[in-house]
Amino acid sequence: MNVNHAIEILVVDDDEGHIELVRRSLLQNGITNRITPLNSGQAALDYVFCRGDYQDRNGNGNLLMLLDINMPGAMDGVEVLRQIKSDPEKKKIPIIMLTTTDDPREVDRCYRLGCNVYVTKPVEPLRFIEAIRRLGLFISVVNLPSEDRPTP
Amino acid sequence: MNVNHAIEILVVDDDEGHIELVRRSLLQNGITNRITPLNSGQAALDYVFCRGDYQDRNGNGNLLMLLDINMPGAMDGVEVLRQIKSDPEKKKIPIIMLTTTDDPREVDRCYRLGCNVYVTKPVEPLRFIEAIRRLGLFISVVNLPSEDRPTP
Repeated sequence: MNVNHAIEILVVDDDEGHIELVRRSLLQNGITNRITPLNSGQAALDYVFCRGDYQDRNGNGNLLMLLDINMPGAMDGVEVLRQIKSDPEKKKIPIIMLTTTDDPREVDRCYRLGCNVYVTKPVEPLRFIEAIRRLGLFISVVNLPSEDRPTP
Repeated sequence: MNVNHAIEILVVDDDEGHIELVRRSLLQNGITNRITPLNSGQAALDYVFCRGDYQDRNGNGNLLMLLDINMPGAMDGVEVLRQIKSDPEKKKIPIIMLTTTDDPREVDRCYRLGCNVYVTKPVEPLRFIEAIRRLGLFISVVNLPSEDRPTP
């Protein structure tokens, strides 16, 4: 299909075990894109906006973000979503909320804020792997936005 | 998985053959949701906003839209996308652009306007069916926003 290998997949989750499961599930489904783990909302924003530890990063690459909602600290997934989708340049980065919360109000809130897709992480490992498998199959068929070009 | 049978899938395409292919591919992948074909951009907007031929429709259901870009008439897919994603109530309806155009500028434009997912329809029937199969698997795992409630 039309997997775009130039796309870098950011996996934002404070649970390293989950990041590892996601990485393995994507690989097993033929998604061999570069995967960058980020373990807090602040790290995710710094990465996207090339700030803090990532101020020297080349921000021209294509990103796709898998974003957990529940992370410790002031910067949870919903706030990360809000800040990226409020930015005229960065809003086109596709954001997949991947979270155990399936509260309909939370789902609604995320869609209103512009999340592209909301997937509930099943708690049981086998169902979790199957959900990521389907997500991987899906990513392989999606056409993603091309390079971020800084506005002149 | 967590298919939500209450979700109604709108397939907006002026090509009836494509609508039929999409309907069959979804069914074959266990997506038995109600599928409503709409053959123009105007019909899609009238349906979503309960206007014109659809003024008596109960607008409280949950919708997901598969939207073709190239449709004849003034109201093409991009304009339908723009109008729905500019509406504070309707913007949460997930819109999957399903189209043969893979011009990166068009892909970019759609993501900026708030499309949830952009899938290029392969022209060859077998690849088209495979793409819809993957899309169906994906829809079965996604958590969609709940009922539209009219603001009081």
